[in-house]
Amino acid sequence: MKARVHVSLKTGVLDPQGEAIRHALGSLGFEGVSGVRQGKLIEIELAQTDPDAAREEVERMCKSLLANPVIESYAIEIA
Amino acid sequence: MKARVHVSLKTGVLDPQGEAIRHALGSLGFEGVSGVRQGKLIEIELAQTDPDAAREEVERMCKSLLANPVIESYAIEIA
Repeated sequence: MKARVHVSLKTGVLDPQGEAIRHALGSLGFEGVSGVRQGKLIEIELAQTDPDAAREEVERMCKSLLANPVIESYAIEIA
Repeated sequence: MKARVHVSLKTGVLDPQGEAIRHALGSLGFEGVSGVRQGKLIEIELAQTDPDAAREEVERMCKSLLANPVIESYAIEIA
């Protein structure tokens, strides 16, 4: 079973990587880019076969390791 | 208009960050994790209002800046 976790900075948290991308896109001639945010995409291959149990396990992984709940939010997709 | 770009390492390309996460999950007692891959999630706010033109523009951004096509693959979502 495969899980995908999207970790992104919460709104209002400064995102220097996103800012750097926005600036670089402007330098390359891409106009009309008003904002860029960069987050992480983590794909996990699990032995667990029950979708609910897998989601609960990944939720615990997010809380203990994958995301910093103070500044980051996360979304879990089980496939 | 908002675009989301998922950039991930191609299969077969060594992913030390993913390996580090897999190892850390094991140390934390999460069993049954057979593989972890880490990629990037880039959210772009565009002035463009036509979905096809936006996709074409983001495609060019990926090729010129956001992804390294030699080792990374990308997927674009327009919302």
